[in-house]
Amino acid sequence: MPKEIYLDNAATSKVSASVIEALSKAMQNNYANPSSLHSKGLAAEKILKKCRANLAERLKIKAEEIIFTSGGTESNNLALRGIINQHSQRGKHLITSQIEHSSVYELMLQLEDEGWEVDYLEVNKKGIVKINDLKNLIREDTVLVSIMHVNNELGSIQPIKKISEIIKQNNPLTFFHVDGVQAFGKIFADLTELKVDLYSISGHKFHAPKGIGALFLKKGIALKPLFYGGGQERALRPGTENTAAIAGLNRALAEITALNKDNPFNAKLNKKKNYFLKKLKTIKEIKINSPKNSAPHIINFSLKNIKGETMVHALAEEGIYLSTSSACTSKNKYSRVLKACGFSEQRNQGALRISLSEQIKQSDIDKVISKIKEKIDFLKII
Amino acid sequence: MPKEIYLDNAATSKVSASVIEALSKAMQNNYANPSSLHSKGLAAEKILKKCRANLAERLKIKAEEIIFTSGGTESNNLALRGIINQHSQRGKHLITSQIEHSSVYELMLQLEDEGWEVDYLEVNKKGIVKINDLKNLIREDTVLVSIMHVNNELGSIQPIKKISEIIKQNNPLTFFHVDGVQAFGKIFADLTELKVDLYSISGHKFHAPKGIGALFLKKGIALKPLFYGGGQERALRPGTENTAAIAGLNRALAEITALNKDNPFNAKLNKKKNYFLKKLKTIKEIKINSPKNSAPHIINFSLKNIKGETMVHALAEEGIYLSTSSACTSKNKYSRVLKACGFSEQRNQGALRISLSEQIKQSDIDKVISKIKEKIDFLKII
Ligand SMILES: Cc1ncc(COP(=O)(O)O)c(C=O)c1O
Ligand SMILES: Cc1ncc(COP(=O)(O)O)c(C=O)c1O
Repeated sequence: MPKEIYLDNAATSKVSASVIEALSKAMQNNYANPSSLHSKGLAAEKILKKCRANLAERLKIKAEEIIFTSGGTESNNLALRGIINQHSQRGKHLITSQIEHSSVYELMLQLEDEGWEVDYLEVNKKGIVKINDLKNLIREDTVLVSIMHVNNELGSIQPIKKISEIIKQNNPLTFFHVDGVQAFGKIFADLTELKVDLYSISGHKFHAPKGIGALFLKKGIALKPLFYGGGQERALRPGTENTAAIAGLNRALAEITALNKDNPFNAKLNKKKNYFLKKLKTIKEIKINSPKNSAPHIINFSLKNIKGETMVHALAEEGIYLSTSSACTSKNKYSRVLKACGFSEQRNQGALRISLSEQIKQSDIDKVISKIKEKIDFLKII
Repeated sequence: MPKEIYLDNAATSKVSASVIEALSKAMQNNYANPSSLHSKGLAAEKILKKCRANLAERLKIKAEEIIFTSGGTESNNLALRGIINQHSQRGKHLITSQIEHSSVYELMLQLEDEGWEVDYLEVNKKGIVKINDLKNLIREDTVLVSIMHVNNELGSIQPIKKISEIIKQNNPLTFFHVDGVQAFGKIFADLTELKVDLYSISGHKFHAPKGIGALFLKKGIALKPLFYGGGQERALRPGTENTAAIAGLNRALAEITALNKDNPFNAKLNKKKNYFLKKLKTIKEIKINSPKNSAPHIINFSLKNIKGETMVHALAEEGIYLSTSSACTSKNKYSRVLKACGFSEQRNQGALRISLSEQIKQSDIDKVISKIKEKIDFLKII
């Protein structure tokens, strides 16, 4: 097999060696149950405390505002169900967008079945929600608005601050949840400044293990848990805590470039992305779908007259791994997200997503570009 | 610090070195998203398939009857909510026992708040549910009965087959869920023969990682998911699959002594337990609370005139870790389970739980016995 070039980091990322080490060490030494009375339990609890503090520092929130979950899907489901189950007396109306990840979108469809009224905000060609529409949609009985920070297929970045201002101006009681799964570690988010009420993240998108995620819940907001049990995570998410994965998450945090107001984009990724983009644009059969100023790890583009799926398999033979749309919908036909952005069916069929990690080298990118060209030439003939 | 002797395996167990290796290897080589189209995704999917097959073989069920979850609490919550949300047209009545783990018990209390009628079966002094009562409690509108297989504090084993017969005789439409978290790997369960409809397990109780569990759902039974999302686990439990933890779980399975009809008890554990019991009985200040023929890893006993908590801390100083009751309730005052069994408040205050792993040596047990004696003598004086 040729050297592997993994370009599917938005689906999931490789756990880094130091994270594996942190995880293994926790399993070897700190394996006790944090709820146990004895000193070994206490030592395990410290892992949680440390990670909570570091995560809070990243998101500019308080440590006690973090609830550990099993990942992004659970965080999103807990956020939405938790709010509406707790605050249903406020109304029966929800707002989201047409391009949410399935863990929000499918849940919204389900909630419609259960009697909720849901408005799905349209997006423009750049994959940005039409915020003028938002103003008109917010009602007195709007319990929650859920809009993702970075779209997982296109990389488009929603104007979260503007959205939260519009929400709070039009109904200060409406909660604002943001799916930050693709944003975390890629673009800076000061959740206090953004005035977000709930924010979801997932470890495996930033080289932490799978099976661990978190939900930010602003202090003072009541939430109904999805699970009942032993009272862990302030009874909002019971179950024996996944301490080793949390130790891994904590280590992964240390490896993400620190982002702040002055450096809101992960610069390492952004540089690689721009190099990749420049090279892709030299291929005449390719049209870029991702908007300008999108997230630094995602490039969505379309091939002319070649199906995305065909190229995925052709490149996999060369040890190059990318995807058509999101992993969660990759077994469906075409992308709901590209369709919502107004891309033609043909453009949708030829769509591919490259998603970068900080490990990718310039020479890898050069190789991928030459392989894409090679495959286009070959596939054009047959 | 003296050599560590860990006797809190019912709270959580230490992940074995080979499991850490399997987990690390999966993270290094098979890190892709099983839902990804490319061949690396396919390779990750194979991990799930292999583990599902091995788990099914252990429980005498079909591979497709397994849903991976994040642990025992989620499995129990998914089982109960999933059934009642799907089948609520059948009625509003549930039956459980007074000694369930909090992930069933607290959920049942919550369901009462939501309008369900719940009966809590009493238990006898041996911690066995009064099955004659069960017969009288089952009604036409009883949607589900949930009874644990092995109790996490006492180790008492419920007569699951008899219970399922009584349920099906009195209402063939009533579903039977069994919390098998403390039973799995300790006592044999042929779920097909036991006629159980749903069965929960949790990896971290048998040296697999935390954050991974499973729910057996008998083929043909409809269940409402707790999460909505990308369609993983037949849309019954969406979210990127925790492949590395599942690789670890699969490895842990290989290390559990194979149990079957002729060897229904984990013999290695049972031998150690019996040795421990024999020695404990020589201490006159100790009274055994666990019944005869209980699970091979748990011994519950009470100290006279010494609080359990005091002994936990005293032994932790010697590197010996055990607990008062379950980890999930260890920060509460006294054990709800011992109370339900009719033990006096004094006996409850002095209660301790030892829970064994296969790694414990006879010499460790001897040391623990001598340390308990020493501490009793010391604590009696002060
Ligand atoms: C934007 C977004 N939200 C949520 C999720 C779900 O996260 P997880 O796979 O950890 O459940 C994903 C990825 O799968 C995602 O890209
Ligand atoms: C009998 C029983 N059921 C359920 C659970 C919950 O499992 P988990 O901690 O994996 O959520 C436990 C242990 O905590 C248990 O002992």
